[in-house]
Amino acid sequence: MEAEEFRRCGKQMVDFVADYISNIRDRRVVPDVHPGYILELIPDQAPDEGESWEEVFKDIERVIMPGASSPACTELEMVMLDWLGKMLQLPEVFLFSSKGLGGGVIQGTASEATLVALLSARNKILSTFKTENKVGGTMEKLICYASVQAHSSVEKAGMLGGVKFCPLPVDNNLSLRGDVLQSAIEKDRAKGDIPFLVVGTLGTTNSCAFDNIKELGEVCSKENIWFHIDAAYAGSAFICPEFRHLLDGVEKADSFTMNPHKWMMVNFDCSAMWIKNRHDLVEAFNVNPIYLKHDKEGQIPDYRHWQIPLGRRFRSLKMWFVFRMFGVKGLQAHIQKHVGLAHEFEELVTKDQRFEIVFPVILGLVCFRLKGSDTLNEEVLRLINERGKITLTPTRFKEMFVIRFAVCSKNTESADIQYAWQEICYISTQVLLEGKL
Amino acid sequence: MEAEEFRRCGKQMVDFVADYISNIRDRRVVPDVHPGYILELIPDQAPDEGESWEEVFKDIERVIMPGASSPACTELEMVMLDWLGKMLQLPEVFLFSSKGLGGGVIQGTASEATLVALLSARNKILSTFKTENKVGGTMEKLICYASVQAHSSVEKAGMLGGVKFCPLPVDNNLSLRGDVLQSAIEKDRAKGDIPFLVVGTLGTTNSCAFDNIKELGEVCSKENIWFHIDAAYAGSAFICPEFRHLLDGVEKADSFTMNPHKWMMVNFDCSAMWIKNRHDLVEAFNVNPIYLKHDKEGQIPDYRHWQIPLGRRFRSLKMWFVFRMFGVKGLQAHIQKHVGLAHEFEELVTKDQRFEIVFPVILGLVCFRLKGSDTLNEEVLRLINERGKITLTPTRFKEMFVIRFAVCSKNTESADIQYAWQEICYISTQVLLEGKL
Repeated sequence: MEAEEFRRCGKQMVDFVADYISNIRDRRVVPDVHPGYILELIPDQAPDEGESWEEVFKDIERVIMPGASSPACTELEMVMLDWLGKMLQLPEVFLFSSKGLGGGVIQGTASEATLVALLSARNKILSTFKTENKVGGTMEKLICYASVQAHSSVEKAGMLGGVKFCPLPVDNNLSLRGDVLQSAIEKDRAKGDIPFLVVGTLGTTNSCAFDNIKELGEVCSKENIWFHIDAAYAGSAFICPEFRHLLDGVEKADSFTMNPHKWMMVNFDCSAMWIKNRHDLVEAFNVNPIYLKHDKEGQIPDYRHWQIPLGRRFRSLKMWFVFRMFGVKGLQAHIQKHVGLAHEFEELVTKDQRFEIVFPVILGLVCFRLKGSDTLNEEVLRLINERGKITLTPTRFKEMFVIRFAVCSKNTESADIQYAWQEICYISTQVLLEGKL
Repeated sequence: MEAEEFRRCGKQMVDFVADYISNIRDRRVVPDVHPGYILELIPDQAPDEGESWEEVFKDIERVIMPGASSPACTELEMVMLDWLGKMLQLPEVFLFSSKGLGGGVIQGTASEATLVALLSARNKILSTFKTENKVGGTMEKLICYASVQAHSSVEKAGMLGGVKFCPLPVDNNLSLRGDVLQSAIEKDRAKGDIPFLVVGTLGTTNSCAFDNIKELGEVCSKENIWFHIDAAYAGSAFICPEFRHLLDGVEKADSFTMNPHKWMMVNFDCSAMWIKNRHDLVEAFNVNPIYLKHDKEGQIPDYRHWQIPLGRRFRSLKMWFVFRMFGVKGLQAHIQKHVGLAHEFEELVTKDQRFEIVFPVILGLVCFRLKGSDTLNEEVLRLINERGKITLTPTRFKEMFVIRFAVCSKNTESADIQYAWQEICYISTQVLLEGKL
C-alpha cells in the first residue's frame, strides 16, 4: 500500500473504530456464533490475485464482528495458518483442514517458537521416561542439537529449557549434514546423555545457509528425536515454486516455523508455527483453572495451551489483510523482486576485482568482503554505518570477517542497490587509498 | 478519549504515518543520538494533570523520531517504567534512576513475567550449586511455592521451567501467610528438595485476595529464596494513596509485576516488571552472537536479555501517551471510580436478602452468590451469559460455586451497574420461581 492509499484507508479504519466505540452498547456482550462459523464465511485458501481494500474492509463487519474477539480471534488464526501452510505447500498433516492432529499457531517470534518446540519435546521424552519408571536426574541428561550456524535463540531455548545444547559442525556449504548428527547422537548416548531435539535451520542468519533437512529428518525419525525446523527468514520464499524445493524434507519435521513479519510484509510480531501433533504441545502447556473453563472445550483448539502467555492478540487480522490485498501472486512477486535485487548487487560486487562474494546468493542476503585483512573490512563497515546513509551488519566465517548486505524493505528498488553500492565503493576507495590497513 | 476525539486524533496519526512513508528517504538510516538522550528531552516523572493530545503528538517528532526505533524504544521504556514505578512508590532500588542494579521492563503478560522471574531464580540457585561443586539431579529437586489461590500461570511457569510447584493453603481471608510458607520450606528441605522461589499474589484472580507479602518477604529473606510478587490486576490501584498500603512489603521482593493493560487503560499487551538486580536476569538469558553485538554495550540495558523473545515492540509509546493524557490524577480517578462502582454493586447485593457477598470487596471485583445450592447459582450464571446482555464468570471457594462481577471497562457508569443488577435479579427471580433447584 502506498502512502496516499494508506492515508485514505487508515482514516476509514479510524472511523470504523470511532463508530464502534460510539455504538458499542448496541452490540451483544458475547457473540452467539457456533464453533467453526468463520469457515463458512471465508474461502479455505488465499486468493491468487490481490483484492481491493474496500473488499477487505467490508468483511471486517461481515466476518469478524459477529465473532468479536472470541471465537473470531482463534478461528481466523486457524484459517490463516492453513492459508499460509497451503501457500508453502506444507504436508496436509500440518494443517487443520486435514482434520487430524496438526495445525498452526502464531507465536511472537521464532525464539518463542523454538522454545515452545523444545518444551514440547522435553515434556514428551520425560513422559516416556516416567511411563517407563526411569527416575532421577533425567532432565540434566537431555541434549539438543543445531548447527554452529543456527540462530542464538536455539542456544537460548536450551538455557531456558534447562537442557544441554550441542552446536554441531557444518560442511563447506555451511550445512548441517545427517552423518554429523548421527555420530553426535551415538557419541552422546554412549556418554549417558539423552538426545531429544534437533533444530534444523533453513536460511541461517549469518549467511542464509541451508541445513540438509532430508538427512536430518531421517536421522531424527530413526532415533525417535523431535525435529524442529526454523525457517524464520527464508520461509517466506518457499511460496515461490522456484524456491519450494528448499523445503523438501519438511514432511519429517515435528514442528516448523517461519516469520511472516520478516519477509512477507506482515507487521512485527508474527511468527507462524505448525505442529504435527498438537497433543504434544497441549500436554506440555496445559493448566486449566475453573475461571478459564468454557463450554466449547474440545470443539476448537485452545491456543492458550499452544504458547507461553495466557492472553493473546488478534494477529491473524494483519495476515488476512496482507494475504488478500497482495494475493499469492503479489506476495510471490515481492519475494522474487528482492531476490532479483540481491543478484543485481552480487553482480556489482563480482565485477569489482577489489571485492569477493563469500557465500552463494540464494535469497535476499549477499555476504561479501574486500579482498584483504579483517581490519580493512571492519574499518569499511564502521565508516559506512557511521555515515548513516546505508546500514550493513557483520558476520564471521572460519575466523574471517564478512559484511552482510540484506534486501528487505518493501520499497527497495534497483536505484537503491546502485546507491548502496556507490556508498560502499566510496568508503572502500577512501580506506584503500589511506593504505594503512 | 471519547469517540469523536479519537476520530480526530486517529486521523492526525494516520497522516503522520503516511507522511513518514512518503519522506522516509530524507531521514538517516540509523540515528546519531547518544545513549541517554531521551532523559534530556522528557521529564523524569509522569505529569500530575493530563495533557492535550496536541502536546503529546508534537513530541513524537521532537523526542522519538531522532532516536527512531533504537535507541528510542529502549530508552522510552526505561523512563516509562521509572514513571510508573514512581507512581506506585516502588522502593528506589527498583528504578533506573537509582543508578543501581534495578530497573523495569515490559513483558507481554504476567505469565511471561512469572516465567522470567522463575528462570532467573532457577539460574541463580543453580549457579550457586555449580560454584559449590554440587552435582547431578539438582534441577529436579527445585521447588517453588505460591498460594492455592495464585493464578494458573504460576503452575504453568513451574511446568515450563521444569521444576516442582507446591500450592500452599491460605487463611480465612484467602491470604498466604508466612508461617505456612516457613513450615513448607522446612518440610521440603528435610525431604531433600531445594526451595528457590515464592510467588506472592496481590489481588488473586479468583477473589482479589491479598497474600501477606510482609511475612512472605521476611521468610524469603531469611531462607535466601527469590521472592516474586504478581499484582497483575490489583497493581494499578496502588497508584492511589488509599490503596498503596496493600503494597507494603514490596521492598523485600526480588521482582514485581503489574499489568497496565489490565486496569490502566493501556492497550494489551503491556505487563510491567521490575527487578532488583538486573544481573540475575541477564545471566539467565544472555547469549550474544556477533550479528547482535553493538558498540553501546554496557551503556544501556540490552532488553533482549531481559525476556524470552529476541525482537521487541515499541510498547512504551502507549504508556507514554496514556500517562500524559490522563496524568496521575486522571489515572487515580479512573481507579477510584471503578472501586466506587464495585461498592455500589456490593450495596445492591447486600440489600437483597436472597443474595450474599462472599469475600470483602476491596477493589473492582465483587464475588457474590444466591443463598442456596450450587446448582441454583450455576443455572443463574448460565442463563445470564446465554442472554448475552452482561457477562459474568464463576469461581469456587471451599467447594462453593461463586459468581464474579468485575468492573473493568473505561465506559462503565452507575447506570450500567443498575442495568447489570436488574438483569441478575430478573434471571434469579425466574429461576427461583421455577423452584426446582
